[in-house]
Amino acid sequence: MKRKQPGARELVAFQGERGAFSEEAARRQLGPQIDVVPCQRFEDVFRALHQKKVGAAVIPIENTLHGSVHENYDHLLHFNLPIVGEISVRIVHNLIAPPGVPFSKIRRVFSHPVAINQCLDFFARNPQLERVPFYDTAGSVKMVMSEGLRDAGAIASTVAAETYGARILRRSIEDDRQNFTRFFTLRRPRDARRLSSPTNEGTQWKTSLVFSTRNFPGALFRSLSAFALRDLNLMKIESRPLRGKPWEYLFYLDFIGHVDELVCRNALRHLGELADMLRVLGCYPRGD
Amino acid sequence: MKRKQPGARELVAFQGERGAFSEEAARRQLGPQIDVVPCQRFEDVFRALHQKKVGAAVIPIENTLHGSVHENYDHLLHFNLPIVGEISVRIVHNLIAPPGVPFSKIRRVFSHPVAINQCLDFFARNPQLERVPFYDTAGSVKMVMSEGLRDAGAIASTVAAETYGARILRRSIEDDRQNFTRFFTLRRPRDARRLSSPTNEGTQWKTSLVFSTRNFPGALFRSLSAFALRDLNLMKIESRPLRGKPWEYLFYLDFIGHVDELVCRNALRHLGELADMLRVLGCYPRGD
Repeated sequence: MKRKQPGARELVAFQGERGAFSEEAARRQLGPQIDVVPCQRFEDVFRALHQKKVGAAVIPIENTLHGSVHENYDHLLHFNLPIVGEISVRIVHNLIAPPGVPFSKIRRVFSHPVAINQCLDFFARNPQLERVPFYDTAGSVKMVMSEGLRDAGAIASTVAAETYGARILRRSIEDDRQNFTRFFTLRRPRDARRLSSPTNEGTQWKTSLVFSTRNFPGALFRSLSAFALRDLNLMKIESRPLRGKPWEYLFYLDFIGHVDELVCRNALRHLGELADMLRVLGCYPRGD
Repeated sequence: MKRKQPGARELVAFQGERGAFSEEAARRQLGPQIDVVPCQRFEDVFRALHQKKVGAAVIPIENTLHGSVHENYDHLLHFNLPIVGEISVRIVHNLIAPPGVPFSKIRRVFSHPVAINQCLDFFARNPQLERVPFYDTAGSVKMVMSEGLRDAGAIASTVAAETYGARILRRSIEDDRQNFTRFFTLRRPRDARRLSSPTNEGTQWKTSLVFSTRNFPGALFRSLSAFALRDLNLMKIESRPLRGKPWEYLFYLDFIGHVDELVCRNALRHLGELADMLRVLGCYPRGD
């Protein structure tokens, strides 16, 4: 394995175009000095990290409007790439245009349909604007800039405007400000172990795991007793039917605690007695 | 309230263009004789039913790849429109073109970016095809037909092809066949009460509810005891932080049973003692 040169910038993979919300999450989580590697699919992001093409990866795991990104939970299960950090990013949509193009000249607005549909109040107030669907929020800024359009804008993040040297004409035009996405930072197991030692006394740790049980009445109740009887606090729980295995369920669960603490080790051993499958997906400083 | 004329077709609201997967769900759930009312936003769907512009509404609630549609859970909480049915629809993407246009002539393929991104293997095998993002899967079929394009196709559902009189050139081109969306049918409370009497002996019933507890260790465990101690079987559970109220959580829960059964009534009363808020969202025949 090639070692990083001293002073070399760390490579971080994410899904989407340069300037995507995942890039914003990556920079806030890992600092401005990283070099980002945009990937087309989530699976490509996991593979890039697994194959040591990058040192870390940042993936969205849940959004307050749309719920969990189950595909990424599936990848967390199939790749062995531990979670080492979490961060919540507010999804702020901005109207962005090339420098020198004023709002009054804008007639067409490009963006991903999901972003356009999250700004319907803005379009209702500005009926002169035609909505044009595009592949990607950040990609629409890139295109408006590279084509030098003088009557067009794009809806995307602040990072996208900065990335492509464009100007923000209207900030925060989304209908719902309670639109947050939670991202995980992933590393390879060896690097993760180095990061997860609970040195800093003030840090509160969170552990994410997945387990399955057969679906008999009370199965989940018994599983949760492993935590409740030890006063461990759950932060999230979500069930998912196991496809192809009727009556079996996966549960994704986050709790407050570090896997090296005795009480957590005991809870995990207890849960292991009850579950058909149990895997810790990561242990990381609480991020909110 | 105006009564439906004998023989008049029932109006059913859904979000999206004619031919959307929600329309397929509506027809499979309520029969082919309905008249559908497409709406722009999910909120418009709920409002149309609440304002008696339609007799029923069909909404997606969770997808196996993307997870729960939290926005619709929020609407279920804010509107009082009970769930009266559920159905799972496999998301099958087809390559669709106007009659007489063969596959060999297709150069451009229009669809919603999410659909395009679920057919990446198909595009990798067919590099001659340019991917063109469009607003809506069904809307892309409508456009290709109305413009009479001779070198273009669209990716959408079988119902979309039928709706616009187009032909399916390639069936089921999606990468992942484990792509299912679960839909709820909603009615107004008076109509829902009429439908939820457990007359048919063979029917298995499901009840969906939402409750909140303060987040002390063991709060969820205690709440689930209301079901576990009565051998009631949970089918789904999902937690969601209550925005603006740190440390409070909503739980969405489905269990097998009818709200009129004594054991279910007892479980709900027990849960009511423990929860800050509890609402039954509906009681409906199990749909899978």
